[in-house]
Amino acid sequence: MMQPYLNPNSSEWRSLTKRPTATYKSLEPLVTSVFDSVKKQGDQSIIDYTAQFDGIRQDDFKVKTDEFEKANAAVPEGLKKAIQNAKANIASFHKAQLSDTIKVTTQPGVECWQEKKPIEIIGLYIPGGSAPLFSTILMLAVPAQIAGCKEIVLCSPPSKDGTLPDVVLYTAQLCGVKDVYKVGGIQAIAAMALGTESIPKVHKIFGPGNQYVTVAKQCATRHHVAIDMPAGPSELLVAADGTANPNFIAADLLSQAEHGKDSQVLFVTTHKPLLEEVARAMETQLRELPRKEIAAAALKNSKALYFKDDSTAIEFINAYGPEHYIVCVQNEDLYLDNVINAGSVFVGNYTPESAGDYASGTNHTLPTNGYSKQYSGVNLDSFRKAITFQKITKEGIQALGETIEIMASAEGLEAHKNAVSIRLKTLKDEI
Amino acid sequence: MMQPYLNPNSSEWRSLTKRPTATYKSLEPLVTSVFDSVKKQGDQSIIDYTAQFDGIRQDDFKVKTDEFEKANAAVPEGLKKAIQNAKANIASFHKAQLSDTIKVTTQPGVECWQEKKPIEIIGLYIPGGSAPLFSTILMLAVPAQIAGCKEIVLCSPPSKDGTLPDVVLYTAQLCGVKDVYKVGGIQAIAAMALGTESIPKVHKIFGPGNQYVTVAKQCATRHHVAIDMPAGPSELLVAADGTANPNFIAADLLSQAEHGKDSQVLFVTTHKPLLEEVARAMETQLRELPRKEIAAAALKNSKALYFKDDSTAIEFINAYGPEHYIVCVQNEDLYLDNVINAGSVFVGNYTPESAGDYASGTNHTLPTNGYSKQYSGVNLDSFRKAITFQKITKEGIQALGETIEIMASAEGLEAHKNAVSIRLKTLKDEI
Repeated sequence: MMQPYLNPNSSEWRSLTKRPTATYKSLEPLVTSVFDSVKKQGDQSIIDYTAQFDGIRQDDFKVKTDEFEKANAAVPEGLKKAIQNAKANIASFHKAQLSDTIKVTTQPGVECWQEKKPIEIIGLYIPGGSAPLFSTILMLAVPAQIAGCKEIVLCSPPSKDGTLPDVVLYTAQLCGVKDVYKVGGIQAIAAMALGTESIPKVHKIFGPGNQYVTVAKQCATRHHVAIDMPAGPSELLVAADGTANPNFIAADLLSQAEHGKDSQVLFVTTHKPLLEEVARAMETQLRELPRKEIAAAALKNSKALYFKDDSTAIEFINAYGPEHYIVCVQNEDLYLDNVINAGSVFVGNYTPESAGDYASGTNHTLPTNGYSKQYSGVNLDSFRKAITFQKITKEGIQALGETIEIMASAEGLEAHKNAVSIRLKTLKDEI
Repeated sequence: MMQPYLNPNSSEWRSLTKRPTATYKSLEPLVTSVFDSVKKQGDQSIIDYTAQFDGIRQDDFKVKTDEFEKANAAVPEGLKKAIQNAKANIASFHKAQLSDTIKVTTQPGVECWQEKKPIEIIGLYIPGGSAPLFSTILMLAVPAQIAGCKEIVLCSPPSKDGTLPDVVLYTAQLCGVKDVYKVGGIQAIAAMALGTESIPKVHKIFGPGNQYVTVAKQCATRHHVAIDMPAGPSELLVAADGTANPNFIAADLLSQAEHGKDSQVLFVTTHKPLLEEVARAMETQLRELPRKEIAAAALKNSKALYFKDDSTAIEFINAYGPEHYIVCVQNEDLYLDNVINAGSVFVGNYTPESAGDYASGTNHTLPTNGYSKQYSGVNLDSFRKAITFQKITKEGIQALGETIEIMASAEGLEAHKNAVSIRLKTLKDEI
């Protein structure tokens, strides 16, 4: 179970906040060779790799109308309603992130403004494997539509019978994603990064994946493609005091631990008896879980930390910078006001992480592995870029011109200066 | 001079929008070895590389109070006033980008919000070489201060006498940057990425540089550090019709061309006579420039394109996605409403690019090399990250709980479902 630490000294924090890091250097030659081949042979290479890696030979990998229709008929009504509920909440939270043009007259006659424009073509990767991650489609396609992305391409690996799960096709369709390709792994990322006869080259690739997809996304950045954020194993930190419910905490920690053997779970408390109580609750609950082997393996990387006061606990939490951060304490404001590094924060006893994973409205694509120190989670702006504009009047350049001339001269850039001088001279001659 | 193209067919656009790309693969072994050495030997390795690469042996590379004082006394008043004017405009435009918390009740009892927090520690790289780029300090340190970054580290290579230019120290001081290190090149980026005894490890590195700095910044991203954006040679596209002034256009094109031999300059017009007029004006102006050799070399990569109608011209411009984009046309709104891909846009005859390079208020750190298709220029949010929060009441989880349970089950994640079920059960038992 979780390793307990009592008042660890700050000299130990560096090792306590360390993530289990994997390096995938060994995969790079394979990834590079797939990219080279996709670049040269396009669709044919996609067909060949799908046969080789997924064991399916398909000549046409674009999902057809009748497949969407079949999927739509097959998904149970209850699941459809749940997905629609989640979609509405996600749309509501991401629509609120739309912003107006910011316009400022910085000095008389000098008007500057900032507008956000959608990234025109984006690619979404939805992993296959044991479970169909349709929730990730909601998290990526809903804000992309709100941002106004013109073209959304979705790739996901086909199962052994050459299909995609009905719920994946249903959700894609519900989110207005029409270009869905049954292509997975490195070849899917390569296709979206480079473009093939069937699959368009995109400007930015979003979505999770295994180590092959992770390395392929890194490789894509060498081909003029942006990615959502660097990848890493998922993680949760719960901070709690005596007002928290140990059973709820145990359930939350286990929900993170079941993601994968490399998931990381931290429990931080200022209430010592809770260490014991949470540990007991976890043992009981773990026994009932279908994915108990995975969860038990993840708990080996995990830590339970007792700190004697709130301020040290908070300092530790910011030093860790958790992807998911649950706060169940009496002095909620103290903990919230002092959050500096976290991906998404879940406040109070009735806010499990799984609410944000699926349906509350916030995004579940979040910076992990300590990247919350410098990256935002996916949000509306992940699908847009800011462009600045400026317009200067004759009076404006007459007032600002000398400043520009002096600075350009001091940087030794006379043509920069001249672009102003020639205008000032023309204006002088006009009078 | 610039190569002219008349109504180029869209099949040629791919090659016309191509940038002169450089690959720096050959520099990677050197960069990696400097990183390894800085990691192992810290400050000592910084001292050794500065001796080796910059030809100066200095035991202490942090700028001292008396050096700041000396610089302050040495910078002429006129230049100081110009820098202060620019700083006020940059501050005004970036302050306007501050935003309130976005809070939404997505459904009753489910409250979601987004807050932006500063990146705590950032690093700025200011190149040395022929001219002191103090304007870049304004562009990076001013928004960093507004964002609330706690620690700003600045590295810049010392000149042969072991000093930094007075105007660099003056500007740093004016912007509240106290931690200035006389360290340049690969070893500066390595120091900020890894940390040494004197130089703190930062979360994000900003700033331009030569090919060594570019490769070092890429390398830094493998050490848990973010960077502002991918680098590339600077570029300008001017779109103009018969209402434009050929002399102004020529001056703007040359101001871009003087940056470096790899700078790219494009001129797009729907008014054929302008091709000739601008070419003539450029020839005349070029002769007077101190950096005429550089500018002339850059013009060899450059193109003048005539399109017979506005819509084709606009389509081409978006396909190119210029870093700097000057628009001097009668039908201004048509061109502005249809900008999709550009870094910063300069509108009208009296808005030279150099205004934005120095003093109007917009940022001059912009996506080049076609990256305006997916990246914003540096703006206030480059120094912050968005964190999401959510708080769900008992009533909220009772209403949303089933949706989460159904979706978690459909994804095969029973512990995710259980984190909700255990709460719903507790609430049921309470009644």
